[in-house]
Amino acid sequence: MRLSRYFLPVLKETPSEAQIASHRLMLRAGMIKQSSAGIYSWLPMGFKVLKKIETIVHDEQMRAGHIPMLMPTLQSADLWKESGRYDDYGKEMLRISDRHGRDMLYGPTNEELITDIFRSHVNSYKDLPLTLYHIQWKFRDEVRPRFGVMRGREFYMKDGYNFDLTKEDALHAYNRHLVSYLRSYERMGLQAIPMRADGGPIGGDYTHEFLVLAETGESEVFYDSDVTDLSFGDREIDYDSVEQCQGVLEEFTTKYARTDETHDEAAFNDVPEERRRTARGIEVGQIFYFGTKYSEALGAKVQGPNGKPTPVHMGSHGIGVSRLLGAIIEASHDDKGIIWPEGVTPFHCGIVNLKQGDDEADAACNQLYAALTAAGLEPLYDDRKERAGGKFATMDLIGLPWRITVGPRGLKNGVVELTSRRTGESVELSPEEAVKKVAEIYAPHMTSRGF
Amino acid sequence: MRLSRYFLPVLKETPSEAQIASHRLMLRAGMIKQSSAGIYSWLPMGFKVLKKIETIVHDEQMRAGHIPMLMPTLQSADLWKESGRYDDYGKEMLRISDRHGRDMLYGPTNEELITDIFRSHVNSYKDLPLTLYHIQWKFRDEVRPRFGVMRGREFYMKDGYNFDLTKEDALHAYNRHLVSYLRSYERMGLQAIPMRADGGPIGGDYTHEFLVLAETGESEVFYDSDVTDLSFGDREIDYDSVEQCQGVLEEFTTKYARTDETHDEAAFNDVPEERRRTARGIEVGQIFYFGTKYSEALGAKVQGPNGKPTPVHMGSHGIGVSRLLGAIIEASHDDKGIIWPEGVTPFHCGIVNLKQGDDEADAACNQLYAALTAAGLEPLYDDRKERAGGKFATMDLIGLPWRITVGPRGLKNGVVELTSRRTGESVELSPEEAVKKVAEIYAPHMTSRGF
Repeated sequence: MRLSRYFLPVLKETPSEAQIASHRLMLRAGMIKQSSAGIYSWLPMGFKVLKKIETIVHDEQMRAGHIPMLMPTLQSADLWKESGRYDDYGKEMLRISDRHGRDMLYGPTNEELITDIFRSHVNSYKDLPLTLYHIQWKFRDEVRPRFGVMRGREFYMKDGYNFDLTKEDALHAYNRHLVSYLRSYERMGLQAIPMRADGGPIGGDYTHEFLVLAETGESEVFYDSDVTDLSFGDREIDYDSVEQCQGVLEEFTTKYARTDETHDEAAFNDVPEERRRTARGIEVGQIFYFGTKYSEALGAKVQGPNGKPTPVHMGSHGIGVSRLLGAIIEASHDDKGIIWPEGVTPFHCGIVNLKQGDDEADAACNQLYAALTAAGLEPLYDDRKERAGGKFATMDLIGLPWRITVGPRGLKNGVVELTSRRTGESVELSPEEAVKKVAEIYAPHMTSRGF
Repeated sequence: MRLSRYFLPVLKETPSEAQIASHRLMLRAGMIKQSSAGIYSWLPMGFKVLKKIETIVHDEQMRAGHIPMLMPTLQSADLWKESGRYDDYGKEMLRISDRHGRDMLYGPTNEELITDIFRSHVNSYKDLPLTLYHIQWKFRDEVRPRFGVMRGREFYMKDGYNFDLTKEDALHAYNRHLVSYLRSYERMGLQAIPMRADGGPIGGDYTHEFLVLAETGESEVFYDSDVTDLSFGDREIDYDSVEQCQGVLEEFTTKYARTDETHDEAAFNDVPEERRRTARGIEVGQIFYFGTKYSEALGAKVQGPNGKPTPVHMGSHGIGVSRLLGAIIEASHDDKGIIWPEGVTPFHCGIVNLKQGDDEADAACNQLYAALTAAGLEPLYDDRKERAGGKFATMDLIGLPWRITVGPRGLKNGVVELTSRRTGESVELSPEEAVKKVAEIYAPHMTSRGF
C-alpha cells in the first residue's frame, strides 16, 4: 500500500478521553474512531489488525478440529426465557422490541442459541464429539464503557461450544481449547497465562482465564514466576490425543497462577518466596466446562449407547478478538507508539523514502515495493512529500516491526537501511538482501490457511 | 474434511415453510437454520460459502483500489436526525433504546456514519480520491421476511462509498465499481446484468442494479438478448484508467436492459423484436452516484484547489453478500440439489467411498484425501458407513461440482471415477490423474490474496 492512496488519519494531539496507552495509541494511529459511547468504527489500519487476529483464531480453532459457523447478532428472547437467563442478565443485556412488538436482544453470548441448534439436529451419541464455534459481534450495555476497544459495548468475540457424551470427553475438549488458545496467543506475540478463575454467571467448576500481564490490567493476579518461563513453542500436537492435551494442561496450570477472585493466600504461600509475584493482568480469553447445566435446562439430549436419552456435557470457550488489539498494544508499545508483533502487524514492512521526487530514490523504493510484494509481503510505502522526521514519527507511531529507509546517500553505496522498531537497531544492506531478510523474518508467520 | 467429523445436518424432508428452491435447498443441505423470523444461523457449510463469497468481494474491491474498514452494526440516531433520514426510514429501521435511554438503531446502511468519519478526518482535496468500504451485518425490519436469506431481516452486505472532488472523478469511481462488480459476480459463476435503475430513497440520477436472471426473481426485467452474450472474462484492467473503465461501462450498459421501475416501452421497441426479452431477475447489487446530497446535508467539505470549502461528490455501492447465496442457488440447481460454481463451492471435491471398512478402499480414499489436500484443495470425504445410494444423494444435494468415487471394482483396475455434478458425466482415471485434473480445474479460482 502506498500511503498517498491509503486512509491513515493519524492524530498529532493525544485525545483527552483516552486514559490508557492502547486507547490513546489506537486513536492517534488512526485505527479506530468512536461512533457513539463504547461503539467504534474500525478505520482501515485497525480493521487490518482485527482481521489478522481473527484469521489466527480461525486457523488455530480449525487446526484443533473445531468447526466454524456463524450465529446472528440478534436473538429472540424466547430461548433466554427457557434457560432462565433472560431475567438474570440485568441491564447489560440490550433488549430490543421489533416492529411486531416481539422481544429480541443483541446477543451477549450464545449458549442458548447453539444449544437450540444442537438439540434440533443431533440425536445420537454417534454424532459426538462435536465442537462448534463462531466469531461474531456481541453487545454488552456497559454503564460506563471506557478504555477504547478493551471495554467497548459492541465487541468482537470468538465463542466455541463443545458437546460430549461424557465428562471425560468434555474435559478433553476443554484441554484442546487450552492448547489451541496457547498457540493462538503465542502467534499474536502475546504471553497469556492460564489462571484458575471463577465461573461467574455462566457457571462451571472448571474454568481458566487467560491473562496478559500489563500495568493497566483490570484484574489483580498472583503467580509463581516459573509460569512466565513456559511457552508452547513450535512443538507438534495431536489434538486427538487425550494424553498430549492433558499433558499441556498440566504443564501450564500446575504452578500457582490465580486472579484475585480465586486467590488462595495459603496455597500462594507454598510458592517459594522469591518466585511469588503480584501483578495486574488483562483477560483475553476464558474456557469453561459446565457439565449438563444448559443441556438439562434446554433439553439437549442424545440417545446414549444404552438407548436412553442422555443430556450432553458442554463447555464454552471465548477469546476476546477486538479486545486483543488493546491487550497487544498494552503489552507492546513505547513512548513513540505501538510495536506490533510480527504475527499481527497490519503491514509487514514500512518503506521510507527520504527524498520523494528524486528519480533514483523513487525508483529504488518502487523496486523494493515490487520485490516485497512479489515475496508475498505487504509493505506500506510512505511516498508522501514530507520531511524525513515526520515520516519516521508516523512509522514509529503505527509500529510496523521493520522499516526500510531509502535515501540518495545510501543508494550511492548501493545500500538501504533496515531498522527494527523494537530495538531501534539498523543495518545497512543491499535492497535485495533487505527483502530477503524481511521475508525470512516473516516466514514462520505466513501459515494461515484461510477458508 | 471427513464427513464423520463434520456437522452437516441434511434434512430428508422438504421444509414446508420454504417457497423457493434456494430456501428449500439451503435448509435441506444443512446450510442455515432460522433462529427467529428472517434471522438465520449459518451452519458450517453455509458459513463456508458465505466466507468464499465475502473473500471474492474483498479481493475484487481491494484490487480496484478501494480500502476496507469496518463500521459497527449499531449507530446513534443523532447522525440520522442530522441527515434527515431518521423519520423517512419508517418501520423497516430497527430502533433501539439503550440503558441510558439514548436513541440508537441497527444500521440498514451507512451513508451517515461514513460521511461523519470523512468529515472528521479529511480536510483537503489532496487526500482525494478516496473510496472506503466495509462488509457488515445490517438489519431491515421487514414486515414479512421470506425466501430464506434472500429477504432476511439480518443480512450481510458490502457497502462502499466514494469521495471525490468533482463529478468526473466520482463517475470514474462509479465505473470502477461497475467493473469490480462484474468481475466479482463472474468469479462466483454468476451472470449479473447491470440495468438502469431507480434511485429510490438513497437518491441519485446515476444508478445501476445488477440482476441475475431467475424465475423466482422479485423484479420484472426487460432487455436486449445481446446483453447476455457479454462477459468480462479474464481481460486485464487498469483501474486508474478513466478510458478503460468508461469503456467497460459503455460496453455493458449501452444495450437496453431495465427493471420495471425504469422500463421505457418506446425505447424497448427500438430493440429488434427477436432480441427483446422479458424475464425475472434477482437484484444482487446496486451502484449509485448521488452528487453532493449527503456531503451538503452533513457538511462533508474539503478545501478545494481554489482554497474554498467544497462539498465532495459521493456515491454508494452495495453487494448483497448473504443474499448472493440464494441467488447463486436459484441460478444453479436441479431437482437433485444445488450445483455450486467452482468459485464459491464449500469444498472443492467430494470423495465417496463405496465400501467403507474395506482396507483397500479406505486406504485409497485416505491417499486421495491427502493428495488433494497437498494440492491446496479441500475435499469432503464421505467416510460414513452408509449405502452408496445415500452417499450419492447427499453429494448431489450439497452440490460439490466434482466427485471422486472409489470402489473395490475400480481399484482392481487401478481407477477411480471423476464425476461432474453439472453434467453428470464420469470418467475413469487413475487416482493421480484425478487429483491432477481437479487441481487444474480449480487453478483459475485459487487467486484470492486474503488479508
